[in-house]
Amino acid sequence: MQRNVKLTIAYKGTRYAGWQRQPNAVTVEAVLTEALKSVLKENITLYGAGRTDAGVHAEGQCANFHLTNAIPVEKIPLAVNTKLPPDIRITRAEEVSLDFHSRYAARGKIYYYQLYLDQIASPFACEYSWQIRVPLDIGCMQQAAGYLIGEHDFRSFMASGSSVTDTVRRIDSIDFDLAGRQLRITYQGNGFLYNMVRILTGTLVEIGMHKNAPAQIQKIIAAENRQAAGITAPPQGLFLKEVLY
Amino acid sequence: MQRNVKLTIAYKGTRYAGWQRQPNAVTVEAVLTEALKSVLKENITLYGAGRTDAGVHAEGQCANFHLTNAIPVEKIPLAVNTKLPPDIRITRAEEVSLDFHSRYAARGKIYYYQLYLDQIASPFACEYSWQIRVPLDIGCMQQAAGYLIGEHDFRSFMASGSSVTDTVRRIDSIDFDLAGRQLRITYQGNGFLYNMVRILTGTLVEIGMHKNAPAQIQKIIAAENRQAAGITAPPQGLFLKEVLY
Repeated sequence: MQRNVKLTIAYKGTRYAGWQRQPNAVTVEAVLTEALKSVLKENITLYGAGRTDAGVHAEGQCANFHLTNAIPVEKIPLAVNTKLPPDIRITRAEEVSLDFHSRYAARGKIYYYQLYLDQIASPFACEYSWQIRVPLDIGCMQQAAGYLIGEHDFRSFMASGSSVTDTVRRIDSIDFDLAGRQLRITYQGNGFLYNMVRILTGTLVEIGMHKNAPAQIQKIIAAENRQAAGITAPPQGLFLKEVLY
Repeated sequence: MQRNVKLTIAYKGTRYAGWQRQPNAVTVEAVLTEALKSVLKENITLYGAGRTDAGVHAEGQCANFHLTNAIPVEKIPLAVNTKLPPDIRITRAEEVSLDFHSRYAARGKIYYYQLYLDQIASPFACEYSWQIRVPLDIGCMQQAAGYLIGEHDFRSFMASGSSVTDTVRRIDSIDFDLAGRQLRITYQGNGFLYNMVRILTGTLVEIGMHKNAPAQIQKIIAAENRQAAGITAPPQGLFLKEVLY
């Protein structure tokens, strides 16, 4: 009997060319698929909730696959983790209805982006954050973030080259959390365009540096043009925290 | 005119064969010495406050060196950090009296050891902690730690093969701090023998697993024999937090 299994996966993205399988590159999807095949002894196709770029991390990526093997689903994490490198872990496995698809069923996602605010980088934070050497006006960034909340056409915040045509998305919240030198910006929304969280973050950082005023966000959105927004923040500060179902 | 410069250094030890220079291995001392030489254009001998083993990290290692170059001392961190890999940072440089020696002047050290308490390891914590898959009785560990405080002959907690003969040390405090799944044990003392913090931690973890009773610590100390103590905890959980002067 066929079953459908939903996995929750954590990974440190540093060593990987992103989530999605591609030729001549080590990706999380490829490594995970091979480990599943080797334990379950059958061919596996993984359906991921979304791609993450090279160097981006995940606390709670989701994926599903169909399975014939009679293994108790709750045994999959420990069994498969022994075949995985330490920078990828299955944290949960659960049986879901046969028609569940991790991408189409997702009703939203939570990402966070970590900034490390100091003149001197931290050897421990450097793989998990973007170092900002100049003072940031977090109040201005929060004010700017307010203009991003709600449903907008976020075309200006999508990497050029993406083939997506419907660029309207809804951002539910953007939260700022400063702990020591680490500033974490958490974004929750119904979906994010290609590179959108990194471009939002780069734009907010430029506002925090007073290169741009908070209210400019309205003009950037209205421009519907990638050139209007700020730089793309580097990948190592970004974490996919959770896929919402 | 010769000056004496004290450096504070942070490093992620994962890639290094420890602090101390040795043939045919990449060590923090060697990499740092080369970076200093390349910026200061003179021969440099670094005197470290103490060695750290392969894989052990430091937030606040200290070292000093004598310098003829007239560079303002406060410019050294930013100048030398550009020549260092991102996993080593000079966080501070200050001029000290010519007779200061970072090892002989130290009046104590603070180390912490991180345990990650979960069945499933974290891809983010695995380079910075020792994963413990079974429940730990932290109350028992705290009780055991109480017997370690004070001045004792810690020979039982020294790796065999060390040539040190005076094995009496004073532990001032051992603090436990549980945050989520991370248990941090912080040790402060006037000095620590070779592998002492890792053997103390391994012994406390075995007591937390109820393999040994807290009061056994007294017998382990009295034995003055490495065989009496517990296992040596792995290096990646250990951080040299601070050298006290």
